[in-house]
Amino acid sequence: MIKIAIIGASGYTGVELSRLLCNHPQVEITAVTSRQYAGVALSEVFPNLRGRTSLICENLTIEELCLRADLFFAAVPHKTAMNIVPQLLAAGKKVIDLSADFRLNSAAVYEEWYQEHSAKEFLSQAVYGLPELYREQIAKTQLLANPGCYPTSIILGMAPLLRAGIIKPQSIIADSKSGTTGAGRGAKVGSLFCEVNDGFKAYGVGRKHRHTPEIEQELGKLANTDFNITFTPHLLPISRGILSTIYADLNCEIEADEVQALYEEMYKDEPFVRVLPLGSAPATQYVRGSNYCDIGFAIDQTTGRIIVMSAIDNVVKGAAGQAVQNMNIMCGFAEQEGLEIVPLFP
Amino acid sequence: MIKIAIIGASGYTGVELSRLLCNHPQVEITAVTSRQYAGVALSEVFPNLRGRTSLICENLTIEELCLRADLFFAAVPHKTAMNIVPQLLAAGKKVIDLSADFRLNSAAVYEEWYQEHSAKEFLSQAVYGLPELYREQIAKTQLLANPGCYPTSIILGMAPLLRAGIIKPQSIIADSKSGTTGAGRGAKVGSLFCEVNDGFKAYGVGRKHRHTPEIEQELGKLANTDFNITFTPHLLPISRGILSTIYADLNCEIEADEVQALYEEMYKDEPFVRVLPLGSAPATQYVRGSNYCDIGFAIDQTTGRIIVMSAIDNVVKGAAGQAVQNMNIMCGFAEQEGLEIVPLFP
Amino acid sequence: MIKIAIIGASGYTGVELSRLLCNHPQVEITAVTSRQYAGVALSEVFPNLRGRTSLICENLTIEELCLRADLFFAAVPHKTAMNIVPQLLAAGKKVIDLSADFRLNSAAVYEEWYQEHSAKEFLSQAVYGLPELYREQIAKTQLLANPGCYPTSIILGMAPLLRAGIIKPQSIIADSKSGTTGAGRGAKVGSLFCEVNDGFKAYGVGRKHRHTPEIEQELGKLANTDFNITFTPHLLPISRGILSTIYADLNCEIEADEVQALYEEMYKDEPFVRVLPLGSAPATQYVRGSNYCDIGFAIDQTTGRIIVMSAIDNVVKGAAGQAVQNMNIMCGFAEQEGLEIVPLFP
Amino acid sequence: MIKIAIIGASGYTGVELSRLLCNHPQVEITAVTSRQYAGVALSEVFPNLRGRTSLICENLTIEELCLRADLFFAAVPHKTAMNIVPQLLAAGKKVIDLSADFRLNSAAVYEEWYQEHSAKEFLSQAVYGLPELYREQIAKTQLLANPGCYPTSIILGMAPLLRAGIIKPQSIIADSKSGTTGAGRGAKVGSLFCEVNDGFKAYGVGRKHRHTPEIEQELGKLANTDFNITFTPHLLPISRGILSTIYADLNCEIEADEVQALYEEMYKDEPFVRVLPLGSAPATQYVRGSNYCDIGFAIDQTTGRIIVMSAIDNVVKGAAGQAVQNMNIMCGFAEQEGLEIVPLFP
Repeated sequence: MIKIAIIGASGYTGVELSRLLCNHPQVEITAVTSRQYAGVALSEVFPNLRGRTSLICENLTIEELCLRADLFFAAVPHKTAMNIVPQLLAAGKKVIDLSADFRLNSAAVYEEWYQEHSAKEFLSQAVYGLPELYREQIAKTQLLANPGCYPTSIILGMAPLLRAGIIKPQSIIADSKSGTTGAGRGAKVGSLFCEVNDGFKAYGVGRKHRHTPEIEQELGKLANTDFNITFTPHLLPISRGILSTIYADLNCEIEADEVQALYEEMYKDEPFVRVLPLGSAPATQYVRGSNYCDIGFAIDQTTGRIIVMSAIDNVVKGAAGQAVQNMNIMCGFAEQEGLEIVPLFP
Repeated sequence: MIKIAIIGASGYTGVELSRLLCNHPQVEITAVTSRQYAGVALSEVFPNLRGRTSLICENLTIEELCLRADLFFAAVPHKTAMNIVPQLLAAGKKVIDLSADFRLNSAAVYEEWYQEHSAKEFLSQAVYGLPELYREQIAKTQLLANPGCYPTSIILGMAPLLRAGIIKPQSIIADSKSGTTGAGRGAKVGSLFCEVNDGFKAYGVGRKHRHTPEIEQELGKLANTDFNITFTPHLLPISRGILSTIYADLNCEIEADEVQALYEEMYKDEPFVRVLPLGSAPATQYVRGSNYCDIGFAIDQTTGRIIVMSAIDNVVKGAAGQAVQNMNIMCGFAEQEGLEIVPLFP
Repeated sequence: MIKIAIIGASGYTGVELSRLLCNHPQVEITAVTSRQYAGVALSEVFPNLRGRTSLICENLTIEELCLRADLFFAAVPHKTAMNIVPQLLAAGKKVIDLSADFRLNSAAVYEEWYQEHSAKEFLSQAVYGLPELYREQIAKTQLLANPGCYPTSIILGMAPLLRAGIIKPQSIIADSKSGTTGAGRGAKVGSLFCEVNDGFKAYGVGRKHRHTPEIEQELGKLANTDFNITFTPHLLPISRGILSTIYADLNCEIEADEVQALYEEMYKDEPFVRVLPLGSAPATQYVRGSNYCDIGFAIDQTTGRIIVMSAIDNVVKGAAGQAVQNMNIMCGFAEQEGLEIVPLFP
Repeated sequence: MIKIAIIGASGYTGVELSRLLCNHPQVEITAVTSRQYAGVALSEVFPNLRGRTSLICENLTIEELCLRADLFFAAVPHKTAMNIVPQLLAAGKKVIDLSADFRLNSAAVYEEWYQEHSAKEFLSQAVYGLPELYREQIAKTQLLANPGCYPTSIILGMAPLLRAGIIKPQSIIADSKSGTTGAGRGAKVGSLFCEVNDGFKAYGVGRKHRHTPEIEQELGKLANTDFNITFTPHLLPISRGILSTIYADLNCEIEADEVQALYEEMYKDEPFVRVLPLGSAPATQYVRGSNYCDIGFAIDQTTGRIIVMSAIDNVVKGAAGQAVQNMNIMCGFAEQEGLEIVPLFP
């Protein structure tokens, strides 16, 4: 049993961490912080949690927080995270940071896409928390950088192909579609029900979305070479779910069943990746509320392209669920503890 | 550990029973039947279940079924149920019937609203499976009639008021709104996405919906008198959830906090009823995927009316979840076993 | 051809007025105001208007506005309206006020439900803009108070019954459900897509919603007596549409076809009220985008109640469309001018 | 004033043709056919049309139809169309066929993707009804093949680039997302509300969708060379709308404003194509219910790719609206007649 705290509990990632952790047998939540809702019961902010937690949102200093818990989930925006994390680490705490602040290995790249980095010296010790790629490092780290939602779906979808070297890396185009939880719980006109409902659009088109360098960093490692991809995010009129449709040119003749074998081999022991049978396409509604990543693909032999589809619940495998999976690994718990949720369909 | 089977596994109630039971520590699912999908893996019919069950849908005779399991969930339409249930009972099996066939105590009333009843002799031994009212009888019965979705929401909402005798029974008006899972998984034009999406309507208006006598039977018992109510169902463009807004004339002067006390008293030990604090209104999105019934109310002193609001997930507390709750009671398991699901929000 | 201006063009009522008026053959829009978007093209704020208007949002004084147009649509919040309208009237302009400021005949009632009224002296000259009841007065007024969305649906639904005197007024219960445009375009957490999507709830329960006195005022006139009703609004996960389900006790024995005749008689010449055939229920999706009010009913002879259902598009017949209809009457145009829109289904 | 008939009026294309044509000043609808609903009022099948048409669905022979109208909209499935169209042509009627039967120039290609073609001899006289490309031929044809919904969005999006020769044709990848009206009004489990709602998926992945050869045919003509593309359709949980995100490799260095000029030049006189300002992205909700195609793009100079986005309402510009536009051209009416609908937002 460890004591954990959630810093920034009033966003969608925060409520999801609470949903997952309040049932986790090895964990006690000892603090949830929110400046906006300080003094308000968490179950009043999120009435789905009623009867499941008596926690009150608090506005605590880092010093106060350090007295409360051993492991911290930082569910705050980037920039805020880099101001908090170093103090927690200095106090000997384990930190799972759900912001972008420690995901990029290169401070220069970070500063190109975000802003000045005030805690560069920690970048090298942070581990990128994709268990399917970095399980061993995750087990040992004190600072875990929880992956972005889009990157999770794209990297898991492309890893077997890049490792096998059967596609041309620079041909990769990722067309991703995300549910609106991805836009956060901030009160913005663009996130209003009537703006999003019964509609669909792309945004951040043309190398503008900040997940681009994160995706390129990890795909580059898998391919053992640097390259650029095209990534286009879209906003879906659904609450949860990301589907990435990813295109790449094959660099050899290969049959679908051989590719299928690559996927099955890489993910055969993974508890949260489901490789679909050939001919099946994943759908966000079949992973809803769960930590699964469903992957399927098809080969278009006429054009020599492979089309990979990868579906996750962006709030779970794309954020809070993956964070809990990482916590399980970091703390030596069973990796599926607290995450054995069957997707909710319909 | 008991062996259970689901008869009629390919509808929305069927998939939900599978979702709940595949994680239940005391239960082994040994058969799932479906004529339409015989031979098809259940996880192919419902890809959310992929990796969680290797069951194949089968088309089995009652005799074959009896060799497989000790307790049966009948998730088939009314009329079909009454043809199956007697054989299962004769074989000494426990049966949880999710159809309407054994909910009404009176064969005459059944035949007025449905059709001829071919198993009338079992009506008297069936127990109406609302644990909050009939827990002791449920524990002993061999035949459980699982309540309808609308009745569950309305009866739980009105029980404290009728027991206390503070409303005029014949003044009750229940305006209920249900998600589209309530219409089943049959391929009907009226249930198509484009017919339902971004729209709203009433149906079965004017004493036409078959849940009416079921509601009246149970409210009548609570009030110790027979009476008629007005019940209007509506179709919501959501997948899951029922919200019932129920109106009644108070027959005495009473303050809100006294009424609140009545609710809290009746439900204080109930694991799945959450009485909201005064001034709060329940919402379907805060019970989604869970077995909770959330109840709130307001008093309009000007008109002397009370307005009660009751929210459930129609597929869970309104069907499969309540069935599992009843199974737990019938089998002596902890009542919350397999049902400790936190509602999925957002 | 008259010159009109829209004060407060950047809300949902504003964009809808622009949609309807930019095609209106008798009207030239000469100004659209918005403090927030001053200097921005209206078609940039609302890209659906692209290619249909070159208007720029402006921040104008009343004096400047008076130089621009002859008739004004005030689509601003209550309280703001009462500060603007008197000046416009003083300048001899016609005003259609879409706020609540001039809907209530009694300043005392207004002040009980809203706040202090600073332009009480205009209340008596304002005409309540429900053409089906007040067409003649509308034609002559300088100040039109455009009805609220909920009141429009409820009053049109109940008028034939109250005029005929066949129901008990004090028994009326209106259970209304509205699309989320009703919450406006303000950036509030409660209106975010993820808070509303796939959910449903009541709000303002127990005589709290400010449309209550407006409904009671108009129903009272129809019944020739004062009384109180119960009104419960709900929030639907749809963009547009209100369905009101209204209950009342009949005070006599009457058959459905006699009641049907009352509805058909009252509305037989009304261009925007469609009385459905007996046995039909209205749905919001069949009036979407149009100025229609669809009305149906059923009688429950067992309980002696009538259930009336009334569907409108809250942004059209519930706001902008009714405003244009009123303008047509006030200006002597054909009443259907600019409003001959067929509902958009699916 | 011409007499027109709609063959196959009970699908979503049929109801949309009725919506558009019942307001068209040059047209009288004299017959609507439906085997399934023969004898039923069209306004009962589609209650949005109530009060706008008194037409009754009929089951008529071609001979009977020929006595009724001069121009026919065939809104029936492929294969059915090819059996009807020749007779109508032989009778001297104009035909607008909304099926795929006459879109492909090559019978061999048709037979590869669909089935045997029984009216090959008419393929050469059919004109592909994309007015932006074939206005002159449309004006003269007796047989118009109305384009598919996906092809309309993709061809309009790519035409300026292919004509200018600035992209590599074989690099084109079209990732398209369609609302569920695209799946038709047939009662299929896969189109049920609860299967589609709050979810998203691809289908027909890997050169399987039948619109592929239609797209390739038209893009090939624009590029003056044959080539294959990759096309992936997806199912959106919305009623109306297609957004295509289309990727292509630039074959030269070019700045965004030069490309913008290409789009503006090609579409400057087109009434239904709106080229968005640089930096804007189209959205399906801004073309809802209208005949517009909104187009935007971005250039990713790092990868040398252009990303084009094209939004239409699949039921309007992707089907019924384009059919009416074509009728207007074929009959010498003003091209915008009956189509001056402002998109419905929100």
